[in-house]
Amino acid sequence: MNVNVQVVENIMSANERLAAENRKTLDGADVFSINIMASPGAGKTSLIERSLETLLPGKNVAVIDGDVATSIDADRAAAAGAQAVQINTGGNCHLDAVMLQEGLAQLDLENIDMLIVENVGNLICPSAFDLGTHKSVLIASVPEGDDKPYKYPAMYRGVDALVINKIDLLPYIPFDMDYFKQGVKILNPDLQIFPLSCQTGEGLPAWLKWLEMG
Amino acid sequence: MNVNVQVVENIMSANERLAAENRKTLDGADVFSINIMASPGAGKTSLIERSLETLLPGKNVAVIDGDVATSIDADRAAAAGAQAVQINTGGNCHLDAVMLQEGLAQLDLENIDMLIVENVGNLICPSAFDLGTHKSVLIASVPEGDDKPYKYPAMYRGVDALVINKIDLLPYIPFDMDYFKQGVKILNPDLQIFPLSCQTGEGLPAWLKWLEMG
Repeated sequence: MNVNVQVVENIMSANERLAAENRKTLDGADVFSINIMASPGAGKTSLIERSLETLLPGKNVAVIDGDVATSIDADRAAAAGAQAVQINTGGNCHLDAVMLQEGLAQLDLENIDMLIVENVGNLICPSAFDLGTHKSVLIASVPEGDDKPYKYPAMYRGVDALVINKIDLLPYIPFDMDYFKQGVKILNPDLQIFPLSCQTGEGLPAWLKWLEMG
Repeated sequence: MNVNVQVVENIMSANERLAAENRKTLDGADVFSINIMASPGAGKTSLIERSLETLLPGKNVAVIDGDVATSIDADRAAAAGAQAVQINTGGNCHLDAVMLQEGLAQLDLENIDMLIVENVGNLICPSAFDLGTHKSVLIASVPEGDDKPYKYPAMYRGVDALVINKIDLLPYIPFDMDYFKQGVKILNPDLQIFPLSCQTGEGLPAWLKWLEMG
């Protein structure tokens, strides 16, 4: 087991080093960047599509999409008008700083104002790998249930903003918003929270304001 | 990188060996066992609760719950009348055969007819770790979206039954059932599919029949 632990430690410190390099690269090119994380199907790609509608053409926005398979998400981001890069993780359950570095190399950063990284759909591992982006965003969604902050604390603890998507489904699903927010508050008292619906557009302006403020 | 690859290979072959041991233990005690996998919030615990309502008291059912934090799910299974064991994975994103072995040691297998293992909420890593259970079940849920078989192929390829939960939400969500099922068929042509709603009870009888047939 010692070999294993040592390997994990080496991987993590290499990741930290590369994340710092990525941050320097992004700062050097004056690119504001966010890392969006969520469960599969919480609405990462939908939120990016809705955000691009407002951000473009005023800003040049690039999207780097991490997935274990297919380029469905990157295709959707490209169709919405962004420069899109697909990173296939080869079965890996999260993006890491090496993968982001490879993605950055495919972009003309000098001509980009904002980079949105869409992480692999997973509420656990992505939280352990800093990519070097400026802000981390978690998307929760109403159908996932109100107990998720309690069950996936590391993810809720480490982010700068929380989107609660699919609020249009609140009438049809048992979801106690107070219980959910109480769990969030324990883990991350100052977290900015944006309840919204990518389907109806409700709540999007507050999120977009935060995003544009950088 | 070679050390790393070697470590991963050793972990996987150790897991296979322990999974075979678990299968032997379960067979020896005549316990039928299933491994339930899904995204966070797809309805693993709800499906277990609804299944226990019908299975108990005719059968002695035990539930082993894997989670990165809390005992919320095991508490719910215990409240529903099952013998419940909580396995805290310590941040790990999946159960493995060692963890199941530790869980089995806490149960009186001779007095159990059926074991339901609730894996960690994750659509990626659990598919790579055989636990030694007899059948694997995946729960998809309507709000996750109809593209999930295409995006998480390993999970859909490796299971014996697929539950499509939350069909009561179909009127409120864009979800193309034909597109979804077509993706499933490519990966796993003979997969048994059970569309149902744990909320309304619709579709549960077919699932329960499959479960009771073992």
